[in-house]
Amino acid sequence: MSSDIFENPVNTREEILAATYRTLRDRGYADLTMQAIGEELDQSPSLVYHHYEDKDALVLACLEYLLEHFRDEYSYETIDDPRERLEEVVDWCFGTADADDDRQPFVRTVLELRVQAIHDPAYRAHFTRSDQVFAETIAAIIRAGIDTGDFRECDPNAVAETLQTVFFGMISRLFSTDADGWAEAVSNEVELYLDSRVYAT
Amino acid sequence: MSSDIFENPVNTREEILAATYRTLRDRGYADLTMQAIGEELDQSPSLVYHHYEDKDALVLACLEYLLEHFRDEYSYETIDDPRERLEEVVDWCFGTADADDDRQPFVRTVLELRVQAIHDPAYRAHFTRSDQVFAETIAAIIRAGIDTGDFRECDPNAVAETLQTVFFGMISRLFSTDADGWAEAVSNEVELYLDSRVYAT
Repeated sequence: MSSDIFENPVNTREEILAATYRTLRDRGYADLTMQAIGEELDQSPSLVYHHYEDKDALVLACLEYLLEHFRDEYSYETIDDPRERLEEVVDWCFGTADADDDRQPFVRTVLELRVQAIHDPAYRAHFTRSDQVFAETIAAIIRAGIDTGDFRECDPNAVAETLQTVFFGMISRLFSTDADGWAEAVSNEVELYLDSRVYAT
Repeated sequence: MSSDIFENPVNTREEILAATYRTLRDRGYADLTMQAIGEELDQSPSLVYHHYEDKDALVLACLEYLLEHFRDEYSYETIDDPRERLEEVVDWCFGTADADDDRQPFVRTVLELRVQAIHDPAYRAHFTRSDQVFAETIAAIIRAGIDTGDFRECDPNAVAETLQTVFFGMISRLFSTDADGWAEAVSNEVELYLDSRVYAT
């Protein structure tokens, strides 16, 4: 979803965040500078400084913008087909491991930013909040499935946290190794886990 | 296990690697310099340069040394109690999430080095090999359990890769967020997964 959000920026702030997203995706965190954002916008860096005090304020605003968009789009009032929805989430996660997946450059940058969060409380606060939003979104699908009888009685939050942890482990291994085959094997095990633990027979 | 390995270095090379381990653990990758290793050893940095050409050669030698030690210690000829052994592995992994765990500083550094591996083929080659060694070690335990009838017929390699992926996801989330409770919930889900997928009833 990420890339589409920034397709039609409606004001200068959104234009800057769109340029930040593209620069993060194409160059990574280390090579993101206020100058580079300015170039991406065909503007002077002073325009960027007028809106954001430094690089990290900009990156965090971009991440927050993406998170809010995710929350708006995926916080359903009703979930008609919980199993289909959960399969979509799992497919979305494991799709990232596909070498042709065009989200890879941005997901790789998110991994870099997670390491940034080790030493930076502002990034840590963001990722704490974003893990919470993702877990709540997945848990809501599982609760809906239990209510409709499509899913077994299980701990929706624990299952959601587990899926999220597998996803971040996958990202961490994906970009730090050249091994292949393992992501498909893990995806199969996750399906077997959902079959035995979540989906009603 | 890591810290004990370096307790009694038998030669200069092992002394340097021990100092590298302690410096990585205490200062992280960014603050590791040849100078800092020299200080840790009460020696001139030229001694360090005599053995290793640069910081990354040193860090990689330290990681390789740890991996070889792990391989020697955990590549059993016989596995008497596969279930007990697998529980040990899982407890070891999830023990890392305990705030009092004294391995945390080094594990956090490993996370930093995994991000280093995004742009550095030598680190990527190391982590490719180390993931393979860990997966093979866990898979051997699972194969042993299938042979003894303690475990169900399952895909040992896929289960091993899944446990490893959960572990790296846990590390990634552990140091990039301030959230708590989730690691315990995930640990419980992993037990339920092993109950339904691996352990014979």
